[in-house]
Amino acid sequence: MTAIAPGAPGRPSVPDARFGERLARARSLLGPRGVAALLIGVGADLRYLTGYAAMPLERLTMLVLPAAGRPTLVAPRLEAMAAAISPAIRAGLAEVAPWDETDDAHALVARLLRPEASAGGRVLISDRLWAMHVLGLQRALPGAHVGLASELLREIRMIKDADEIALLRTAAHAADRVVEQIVAGPLVGRTEVEVSREVRERLLDEGHEIAEFAIVASGPNSASPHHDAGERVIRAGEPIVLDIGGSLDGYCSDTTRVLWVTGGDPAQGPTPEYRRLFDLLQAAQAAATAAVAPGVPCERIDAVARDIIAAGGHGPDFFHRVGHGIGLETHEDPYMVAGNAEALRTGMAFSVEPGIYLAGRYGARIEDIVVCGPHGPDVLNQSSRDLRVVAG
Amino acid sequence: MTAIAPGAPGRPSVPDARFGERLARARSLLGPRGVAALLIGVGADLRYLTGYAAMPLERLTMLVLPAAGRPTLVAPRLEAMAAAISPAIRAGLAEVAPWDETDDAHALVARLLRPEASAGGRVLISDRLWAMHVLGLQRALPGAHVGLASELLREIRMIKDADEIALLRTAAHAADRVVEQIVAGPLVGRTEVEVSREVRERLLDEGHEIAEFAIVASGPNSASPHHDAGERVIRAGEPIVLDIGGSLDGYCSDTTRVLWVTGGDPAQGPTPEYRRLFDLLQAAQAAATAAVAPGVPCERIDAVARDIIAAGGHGPDFFHRVGHGIGLETHEDPYMVAGNAEALRTGMAFSVEPGIYLAGRYGARIEDIVVCGPHGPDVLNQSSRDLRVVAG
Repeated sequence: MTAIAPGAPGRPSVPDARFGERLARARSLLGPRGVAALLIGVGADLRYLTGYAAMPLERLTMLVLPAAGRPTLVAPRLEAMAAAISPAIRAGLAEVAPWDETDDAHALVARLLRPEASAGGRVLISDRLWAMHVLGLQRALPGAHVGLASELLREIRMIKDADEIALLRTAAHAADRVVEQIVAGPLVGRTEVEVSREVRERLLDEGHEIAEFAIVASGPNSASPHHDAGERVIRAGEPIVLDIGGSLDGYCSDTTRVLWVTGGDPAQGPTPEYRRLFDLLQAAQAAATAAVAPGVPCERIDAVARDIIAAGGHGPDFFHRVGHGIGLETHEDPYMVAGNAEALRTGMAFSVEPGIYLAGRYGARIEDIVVCGPHGPDVLNQSSRDLRVVAG
Repeated sequence: MTAIAPGAPGRPSVPDARFGERLARARSLLGPRGVAALLIGVGADLRYLTGYAAMPLERLTMLVLPAAGRPTLVAPRLEAMAAAISPAIRAGLAEVAPWDETDDAHALVARLLRPEASAGGRVLISDRLWAMHVLGLQRALPGAHVGLASELLREIRMIKDADEIALLRTAAHAADRVVEQIVAGPLVGRTEVEVSREVRERLLDEGHEIAEFAIVASGPNSASPHHDAGERVIRAGEPIVLDIGGSLDGYCSDTTRVLWVTGGDPAQGPTPEYRRLFDLLQAAQAAATAAVAPGVPCERIDAVARDIIAAGGHGPDFFHRVGHGIGLETHEDPYMVAGNAEALRTGMAFSVEPGIYLAGRYGARIEDIVVCGPHGPDVLNQSSRDLRVVAG
């Protein structure tokens, strides 16, 4: 239901030919892995493989990509025209199989797959396919073993090509500009929701087609990593955690900065305790970012930040992973988390965002989107990572 | 990741006590249906039962509502503070069970359920739970029979109470105001995406917290029911289908109106052919709406519109159902579609939106949100349903 505008002129974009390459690459992995077919519902996987940003409706839209035979895009009849002008369909890489309102769409998918998948074959479904479709497909393909498409697609999607990195950079810079606009104020005396609303409008003004989230966590609310902006009025003499993002031509932005608002009164500046906490956090974020290089295990990026924060006495107050992959989804593989020994590779894009949270008091988080370059980190966000002390 | 603002003062809202009633009602249905537990992920079901508008993250957030024993809200540790201030948790109706980044959240859910659910018991999962969690739960609960929560919750959620209807009405009127603002122009010479962007901003200005979709389908694009607004420039002498909506305090708006832009030139008015098509459509939409009353089968509402359009020679050009339920989701039960013999009941809310589409030429659709009242339809949208002939 989200209408997504095509790339405006002059913006980076993914050329149509890329979808053919991606489909071919995904298919080439099917046989060797013993997978009969990929079944890809609406969402990032579908957009990645076909360029089709389908509406997330309860009616099934599904790319059926078999190991052998032509790919088919199963689509509700009323979406058929929108599907037909998507890059992969326009280029003749797949055919649309429309279904009518009273048809059984799961049975249609099963018919396209028989007999390979139903005779004990393996099919992989997109990770965010809704349960109504998962159970429907399991019923329609009683012989099939169902797994997740990320088993195969993560390896392709994790490595961003130059066009994708250009889009992520464009989105990051747009979010950076919004940060600066919010830093310029006014802030004191306004509610969190008012500022959150302003963030969303500015994300759209700066080229995002979706302003997905705008966390404005003031004072004690800053101790809740995913605080929902509320009716609390921002006061002088407190921190604000600003965590904002959305998507621009499908590619996501996500950045976090911390402000301290004084109301223009120098006596309302950051307390020495907050300053110490923030400096510790900033050092941890910088060190974790600097550790990014090909071959470094993902969990190492997390550990670098965690060790510094723990050495500063705040280990238990940093209770989330240090980062998540980003691309067509805000959160995707690879995750920078303890236990993930996967080695970083050139072209991986992810957040580096340690946080320290003291319940009932305050918290802080700094977040950049970082691409693993051939020799080290390519930090996409460019706004200052310092504690931004402003009148507000 | 979508930050949802709490209800602003003066707006209708769902009182906190309602969540206790809803949880008790859902639970009361479990035993008689032989269901061991409801497993409710992020989304409308969770918001309906607990008031918690959790961020749609890949980390599992799940309300575990067993037939016996206390409800538990399984939540990632970094969401625990946000979860704690949600209505049901605040009121002590459920407890939060936080999990850490390296924990197995599916195993945690399974532990909360054993031994009832794993010993061949039935568990119902929310319909939009992502496949990664569906398969994870199926693995963690190998003995369980997994079904969809809508089997049970649809009966509760389908009947809106007075507070919910007030919220739907507020959202509908807000969308109506946006329609009038767009009708006022300018339109000719602008691209669809520009107008779509304006619609989204105006939906936010009028009180929506999410501007979910803004279809602006001009000229031949109006023949595609779910056209994505694109770079096409709107010209004088053509129709525009405007289908817009979002959510306001969680409750959804969804309305469609048709404009004809003349550019100020009377010679560029609607063609007689388009006028005929539109008049037929309008008669069908009015008749389907008038047919709404308790006891009438859902499929009858569809048939009333379809029979009129077919009699006018456009049966095959109306190729989607006439309507969908609406509430916390834009599309939910009940569906006004052939084959759905369910009888309308007082408090059901749904769209009535026939359309006629002539590929390559043009199309039209008129959509209202209608509540089934005790004696007939309560039409929430109030903007004119006529073909709006404007200079644009």
